[in-house]
Amino acid sequence: MANNLKGNAVVGQSGGPTSVINQSLVGVIQEVQKCGHIEELLGSRHGVRGIVDEKFIPLKNLGMDLLERVAQTPAAALGSTRDKPDDKYCDRIFASLRKHNVRYFFYIGGNDSADTARIVQNLAERENYELRVFHIPKTIDNDLRVHDHCPGYGSAARFVAAAVMGDNFDNISLPGVKVDIIMGRNAGFLTAASVLARRNSQDGPHLIYVPEAPLTEDKFLADVDAAYKKYGRCLVCASEGVAGPDGKTWTERLASGLDVDAHKNVQLSGLGALGDAMAELVKKKLGIKRVRADTFGYLQRSFPGFTSSVDAAEARLVGKQAVLFSADDSNRQGSVAMRRVPDSQYKIETFLTPLSSVARETKHMDASFIDGGNNITDAFRSYALPLVGGLPPVGWLDESI
Amino acid sequence: MANNLKGNAVVGQSGGPTSVINQSLVGVIQEVQKCGHIEELLGSRHGVRGIVDEKFIPLKNLGMDLLERVAQTPAAALGSTRDKPDDKYCDRIFASLRKHNVRYFFYIGGNDSADTARIVQNLAERENYELRVFHIPKTIDNDLRVHDHCPGYGSAARFVAAAVMGDNFDNISLPGVKVDIIMGRNAGFLTAASVLARRNSQDGPHLIYVPEAPLTEDKFLADVDAAYKKYGRCLVCASEGVAGPDGKTWTERLASGLDVDAHKNVQLSGLGALGDAMAELVKKKLGIKRVRADTFGYLQRSFPGFTSSVDAAEARLVGKQAVLFSADDSNRQGSVAMRRVPDSQYKIETFLTPLSSVARETKHMDASFIDGGNNITDAFRSYALPLVGGLPPVGWLDESI
Repeated sequence: MANNLKGNAVVGQSGGPTSVINQSLVGVIQEVQKCGHIEELLGSRHGVRGIVDEKFIPLKNLGMDLLERVAQTPAAALGSTRDKPDDKYCDRIFASLRKHNVRYFFYIGGNDSADTARIVQNLAERENYELRVFHIPKTIDNDLRVHDHCPGYGSAARFVAAAVMGDNFDNISLPGVKVDIIMGRNAGFLTAASVLARRNSQDGPHLIYVPEAPLTEDKFLADVDAAYKKYGRCLVCASEGVAGPDGKTWTERLASGLDVDAHKNVQLSGLGALGDAMAELVKKKLGIKRVRADTFGYLQRSFPGFTSSVDAAEARLVGKQAVLFSADDSNRQGSVAMRRVPDSQYKIETFLTPLSSVARETKHMDASFIDGGNNITDAFRSYALPLVGGLPPVGWLDESI
Repeated sequence: MANNLKGNAVVGQSGGPTSVINQSLVGVIQEVQKCGHIEELLGSRHGVRGIVDEKFIPLKNLGMDLLERVAQTPAAALGSTRDKPDDKYCDRIFASLRKHNVRYFFYIGGNDSADTARIVQNLAERENYELRVFHIPKTIDNDLRVHDHCPGYGSAARFVAAAVMGDNFDNISLPGVKVDIIMGRNAGFLTAASVLARRNSQDGPHLIYVPEAPLTEDKFLADVDAAYKKYGRCLVCASEGVAGPDGKTWTERLASGLDVDAHKNVQLSGLGALGDAMAELVKKKLGIKRVRADTFGYLQRSFPGFTSSVDAAEARLVGKQAVLFSADDSNRQGSVAMRRVPDSQYKIETFLTPLSSVARETKHMDASFIDGGNNITDAFRSYALPLVGGLPPVGWLDESI
């Protein structure tokens, strides 16, 4: 491990925030404070937009007391962005980095951020400007290729599992049909985490719908009807991205005039329409009276004081590792990924994977995780359980009967 | 303190569950295990319905390990009910209590439950049957008369304050208008707790709307417009029961065909229509692009592992106190209330208030808690802060600038 390239570094945060994205930021800062090859560490305000607008905060000299509190705080402390840079935008990013003698660029984000990092790195290479670019993963969707799982997911999964656990008891107390809408446009990992709420065969969620398993109205109604007859109640967890066999999301089918973002995605989060429509359907078609819906919304990514300790530690780790990897001249670029150490209790190791292997396309739930189009398998439970870092202890009087 | 009346006791839970309602149940069980005057303690399944249907669980011999886990678990472990007993129903309750030699009836619930307790107690008196009836308060709405505050409120308030705290950081990260809809049909206490999320004058919530302050569409839009111009973003917290000057709720005005419960209340919870409508209004009338809404829903009352330690202890206490009060022959009936000990740091004492003083009508936010129809005062902050038992530590980079 040798490094002769000295210069400044920029770190930025991008995309939908998570509750541990600042752990990664603090990991970068802490490691830069210790390392020799990075002179100044500039925090870019609102991701790449801050680079273009030259809005930087110097981060190298911040004290540990503040940093530890920032690390525990959800959402992007540097500000985030939804900008999707085109080639021209990337030219401007590169020009600004060059101007500020930036030799290291750390970008915390999802697959779109990895792609931006990749383009900027390519530009620098073409211009013969030595620039090392590292992508630090974050996404509650858990949908990055190559990565075993992504920082941000474990905490969101813990929130979802606990919320559904509580809602299951609520649904036992006052029986009826309850529909919970959970984030996840294309990947069902977060919705699938609701399976962790079950203690026994009577517990909800009784039905779990992910985007990977096409769902017709008829199947949905037949499922709810059967579960309601069996349990005297029914708790449903559905991804916001649940879609029909034609690939159209239920939300698109049910609503028009919805927002479209810079990535041409229809707005699925931040509104309650899907849950309300599913509840209405159950009321009308099955004649069940007590039907309610909740849309968990942004709380899944931004609720403070309830993160997964495992997720928090891993988010810190990948930030630190990015700086450590950057100290080695042979690492020109990459995304800091985690994989499980085989033949061990849950334990991970990090490695660098090329930006192109993570950029753009995303990962879906493996078919082995989905059961019958309305349930989640034990294989998924084994995969996800270590990531949430424990769930609150609960007990119920049925244990005494 | 003397007691010659020996017999069985029934305990039941009623109304919307809270995350500490089982603390009160466990308080009752623990104290009954120690006392001499109660022979068997019967847990009634689903409130008064279990009494009528004679569905009881014997509770006196349950072990502490299970009880402590039940106490930490949200929702009503005995099951709850929305039944609103009429005179005939109350006759049947009384007949069942008499049949099972029940001399003590502990009913955990809100103002409707206090009213049911009152009617049953009156019936017993008329029939010359010695029956002691105690109401144990619970409500996240915090709207019981006489009571300084109600068990269940502190934990729901903690959840709301933390959720809004996180959402404020999310809203800084990705600026826009965000509307959060918080439970509370007639009383704004829970929505007002969102004020605890503010660290400084820039933080959201920038606007807080409670049912007690009539809100017109024009005022709402002018408020959002002004806040958005001032802060470059706007975080709104609104009660689900927010209403116009004519007393009609915004939800009633915006939607038709909504559910009506046994108490003739329109369904406001368990749907996202109000938040969506408010967000739509801002988009259309103010032309702001990034507008989102979340409806916190049942999570406010049922999220596990995030209760207020103060609330949990007080909920346990009022359950225990009900049994202790029942040991005194001079206490025929009453609701176990809390008041603050004057001239002290936050400290409460319990007392018995007649059922009729708590039954039926509810309490509203004092005018001194509301500021300009869109904000909450420091007087409320002082009132509410001790109840949430601390909030998660957070930090932001603006503290370094």
